[in-house]
This record gives sequence, C-alpha cells and structure tokens, in this order.
Amino acid sequence: MDVRTPLNITLIGAGTIGLSFAALHLSTATPSRPIRLTIHDPRPDLLAYIHATLTFYLPPDPLSAAQPSDPTPSPRPVIDQLFATNALILAPDLPTAVSTADIVQEQGPENLAFKIQTWKAVEEHAPATALFWSSTSGIPASAQSQSMRDPGRLVVVHPYNPPHVMPLLEIVPSPTTAPEVVARTVAFWRGVGRAPVVLRKECTGFVANRLAFALLREAIHLVQEGVASVEDVDAVVQASMGPRWAVAGPFKSYHAGGGGGGLRGFFENIGGTVQGCWEDGGRVEVGGGWEEEVFRQTREAYGVVDVGERDRVTRRVLEVVGEGKGVRQGRGADRKLSVGAARGSSSGPMEMERSSSSTTAQHP
Amino acid sequence: MDVRTPLNITLIGAGTIGLSFAALHLSTATPSRPIRLTIHDPRPDLLAYIHATLTFYLPPDPLSAAQPSDPTPSPRPVIDQLFATNALILAPDLPTAVSTADIVQEQGPENLAFKIQTWKAVEEHAPATALFWSSTSGIPASAQSQSMRDPGRLVVVHPYNPPHVMPLLEIVPSPTTAPEVVARTVAFWRGVGRAPVVLRKECTGFVANRLAFALLREAIHLVQEGVASVEDVDAVVQASMGPRWAVAGPFKSYHAGGGGGGLRGFFENIGGTVQGCWEDGGRVEVGGGWEEEVFRQTREAYGVVDVGERDRVTRRVLEVVGEGKGVRQGRGADRKLSVGAARGSSSGPMEMERSSSSTTAQHP
Repeated sequence: MDVRTPLNITLIGAGTIGLSFAALHLSTATPSRPIRLTIHDPRPDLLAYIHATLTFYLPPDPLSAAQPSDPTPSPRPVIDQLFATNALILAPDLPTAVSTADIVQEQGPENLAFKIQTWKAVEEHAPATALFWSSTSGIPASAQSQSMRDPGRLVVVHPYNPPHVMPLLEIVPSPTTAPEVVARTVAFWRGVGRAPVVLRKECTGFVANRLAFALLREAIHLVQEGVASVEDVDAVVQASMGPRWAVAGPFKSYHAGGGGGGLRGFFENIGGTVQGCWEDGGRVEVGGGWEEEVFRQTREAYGVVDVGERDRVTRRVLEVVGEGKGVRQGRGADRKLSVGAARGSSSGPMEMERSSSSTTAQHP
Repeated sequence: MDVRTPLNITLIGAGTIGLSFAALHLSTATPSRPIRLTIHDPRPDLLAYIHATLTFYLPPDPLSAAQPSDPTPSPRPVIDQLFATNALILAPDLPTAVSTADIVQEQGPENLAFKIQTWKAVEEHAPATALFWSSTSGIPASAQSQSMRDPGRLVVVHPYNPPHVMPLLEIVPSPTTAPEVVARTVAFWRGVGRAPVVLRKECTGFVANRLAFALLREAIHLVQEGVASVEDVDAVVQASMGPRWAVAGPFKSYHAGGGGGGLRGFFENIGGTVQGCWEDGGRVEVGGGWEEEVFRQTREAYGVVDVGERDRVTRRVLEVVGEGKGVRQGRGADRKLSVGAARGSSSGPMEMERSSSSTTAQHP
C-alpha cells in the first residue's frame, strides 16, 4: 500500500488569480504526490464562486473523460469530490488555514497594510518550515515583511495570468530573503514543470510587466497617432514577435538576426533604425486622454474575448515549443486531474514524496 | 492539358531577405499556379550564394522526401532543377530582370539614392501593370518614389525576418500610393496564406519594429540595472508574453484580462502599476555604453543560435495557432516544394491562374 502524506498548500485569497493557482496545484497531484489545498477567503459567496470558477480552470476529470460523447457534463461533481476527499478544504480563519501548511501563498488585496498584517499572522500560526509566497504584482517582499520576526522567510512569486496556463513565475526575493527559501521555491516550480525566473533586485512592476507595458505604451501611441488600429497592432504582434518570442526571447532572436556578428552585428547593421524608433517613440501616460478611443476600438474589435479558446491554443503553443526543444513545459496544467489523489492521506505514513527535480529539501 | 502561364516575380537584391522571399515565393508554386522567379543582384558570387543559402530556406523537395532515410541528401539538385525548369532565373541586368515581371520586389541596400535610381529604372522597363514592392525597413515609399513618373505604383512590403517563416507583411503605402495597388498587394499575400497588415501612415520604423524595439529598450535597461540577466529576460518573455501574444495580441489580451470591464476594467484595476512601470522605464540609447555587457552576456548565453531549430519550432507554433483558430496560416512556407511547377510554361496558353482570394484583379 502506497499512501503518502499530502503536500499542504494554503491559498490566502481566492480571486481569479487565487483560483487559477488552485487549479494549477490540484492538477499536479498524483497518487505518489498528493496535494491538500486549503483556501481561506472571507468573501461570503466563496463556495459558489469556487464552483463557478475553479471548475473551468481544472483540466478534465479522467472519470468524465471516459464519456467524451456526453455534451453536457456536469461540472459540479469534480469540486464536490475534491471536497469529499479532503483534497480541497475551506478554512474559516487564517490561523486554521495555515497551521499545517507546507506552503502559504497569498493573493489578497494589493494593499500594503493588509499584506503586513497577513504575514505577521501567518508567521505566528504556520509551521516553522513553511514557505511564504506573495503573488503581488507590485508590493515588494521587503515592504510586506516589515512586521515579521524573520522577514527572510518571505519571497514574491509573481505569476503571469492565468498561472494555471502560463508557465512563468517571477521569483523576487527581498534583500533579506534567505537563499534557501529561494532555492526551495525554484525547486518546487521546476518540479511541476513551470518556468521560475529569479530576479536579482526588487523593482517596480518586476520584469514581465515592465517589458509588456513598454510595448503596450508604444502600441497605444501608434493607435493614438493613427498609424494603426487596435486590431492592426494585435495582428502585427500575432504574426511576428508573438510566435517568434514564444520560441526565442528578444536577445536571442536579435543575436541570431545579426548573423555571424551576433547581437553586436545586429546593432552594427540596424542600430540607426533602432535609435530612430526609440527617439520617435511615444510617451503616453495613464489618464492622458487616449483612453476613450483605444477602449472603443478594442471593445468594437473583440467584444467579450473567448478566454477558453485563447487558453486552449496557448497550451498547444507551449506544448509544441516544449516538444521542439525536447523539454516538458507546463506539465502541471497539461495533466489530467487525479481527483481524490489525497484520499487516505490522513492515515498514511509521514513520508513526503520528493519532487523529481528537487535538490534542496524534502519539502519543496 | 493544363499548362498555365507562370506568375513572374522579380527580386532585386538577393541578400538573406531576398533569398528568404525567394524561398517563400517558390514554395507557393503549384501546377495550377506556377511561379517564375527572376533574381537580379550584381554580386559576383551570386550563384554560389544561392546554392549555399536558398537550399536551406526551401521546404523539402517531395522527390528527396521519398527517401527520408538518406542522412546526407545533396541540396544542389533542387536548385539545379529550379534553374533547369526556368522556375528560377538569374538576370544579368535590371531591364532584363523586370521586362516581363508581374511583381518587382526590391531588397537592395538601405540607401535612398540607390532606391530612387532603382525605381526610376524599374518603372521604365517593367510592364505597366506590374506591382512594385520595397522590403525596406526604414525608407518610406514617398521618398523612394520621388523620381518615378507615377509614384502611386510603389508600396512598401516590409517583412518580419525571415519572411519564408514569419507570416507578417507590413504594407505601408505612401500618401500617393494607389488604393488599387494596396488592394492587389493585400490580395496576393492573403492568397498565399500570409498576414498582410496595411498601415495608415508612413512612420519611422513602421509598427512591428517600433513595438519590438520598445520592449528591447526596456529589456536592455533591466539588464543594465542588474535586475535580470540577458538569459533571464529571454526566459521571462518565452514563458509569458511570447506564447500569449502568439495567440492574442496585447490589446486583446489586456481586454480579456480586464474581465467584464474589458480594457477599461484592466486600466481601472492596475493602471497605477502600468503608470509606475512607464515612469520607472529606462531610456537607454544606441551607443550609450550598455553594449559590451549586453553583447557579452548574449554571446556567452547563446554562442551561435541554431536558426534551423528556431524556425522549425516557430512554424509549429504558427500551425497550432492557425489550427486553434480554424484558419490556415503560413500556408506557403508549410507546403512541400513542387519543383518544376513552371515547366512548359513558356509554351502554354496565356491564361493566368487567379489566386483564390484575389478579388481585385487577375494578376495579384
């Protein structure tokens, strides 16, 4: 009999990012690596929200997949079964939520006072070895951890939405975050096939958003100038740098574009054009008056986006990139959900399954 | 007997972009739509360069594909057969090159005097109905056409490199380019499964490069600031906005990210973070002193990039995006080369095959 103690992951905050992480974690569960996911969120409609949202983030249930011809599978049983097997638990208060956690992952309001208070309480009630992760998109760990006894325990783990689809996790330590915390965090994410990238310094907005928003700024400028419509800009990106950068990032691409001279050759060849584009680039501001036209064009072009289709195709893109490079990518989100993987876990031996790529610790 | 008159495409300039376009055009040839490709370039080693380069841009020859187990197929016969069947012709001078052209596509030196002189001569010697396309990355049609009798015939068709792989063509008319020229150009590219986007105004660098270089600028800034390494930046992009934007461009993505509120909701939610990133963004300059460190990191990270693998995986990405959206994308580059499709063309009836999506003219 092979019954394992589950990995206890606690999510503080169950908005769309929280439930996307819930789906990601649950999808990585296997009989040899069961997950017990605890959610704490004070919203009164939490249960209904989980049923309405989490269901559609989860990969297909292998049981329901046995009847692929059924056009109207009821989503509810998957969630019910997760609850029934203690793979998914709702905690009424924070101390209960974190008391046996191996990982505490926070995606509450983007409010410094809330974060400071939360981490103070989490540290008080969680096991001494638990990892503490904040999904914040803007409040650095150094600010959030200021009332902790040991601020070195906190690290930012910033996803690219939605995390149950997109592989990136920006790992942003504060200057005092313990290297061991970073190492365990990276090992955890690598172990489930995701793409953690450790930043070397805290900075406004971290890296992914800064890069994407720099391009967005120029895109808004070009629409404002009447060079291209919102749809034209998207069509340009989808037919050029999108697919290119899915395979090779900008430095690697321009390094290849420079032929034998590499990135230096690239700048020798067209550095003048690059500088010309930079000098002519726009500096639009949020609230600068471009909004109504850009919002209108976007609404008229797209209405309500079919996120399900987008995410399905994005997963296929990630798969073929992973296949092409001979690596597995996005493993967690691509696997079938093993409902009830944590079954019997409370009576099993206290053995923890080591993630295959973990090199630092038994727990992640 | 079904023998068609080939579509005559003349390339002025056979550098890497020229030969990439050559591969693209040749790969779209079919028995019912034969292509006769004429190349004019004064470089003395032109023939050797074509053998060395074009071979590897072309899709597999169906004949050699019949022996897939042969580990060392000789590339030379494909090119030889293209020459033998008059599907590929080298022209000794410009008047000869363009005298029967349906399309003249220029990718010569990025030098205004050269372009002005070239188009003056092309107009003099080409048929009155021929389309004139410049692949320039920076010199607008309005400047290039200034010595033409009819400047309205010229339009910029700017690729995203390499064009035999990447679907984007930026169609950039001058203020005087005839709408019919734009319409025929768009119809041609749509007819071979590519993604033409017509810009509404000439501007420095056009749209794709301006967008990509805006992101590159911030990427360089973040490396210079020590926030992330060159490899980290590429890893971030490859795991986030690359695959996302391959499927849905930035406006569509952020519109989806704003939930029911769309792009407006997105800016209501995190407009402050966006503005913070913009204000903190870098303004590096070409020649600004960041080069040695960035070039060094890039060289050490990548050495010589395997462009063949990159392009192979990029094609798979484009395929799955096209499949996911229920459209064919990158048709030309994905098809097997039909060597000798133009055979017998000089003796056939003077009937032109209409491209399936062409709505404007018999010729493209």
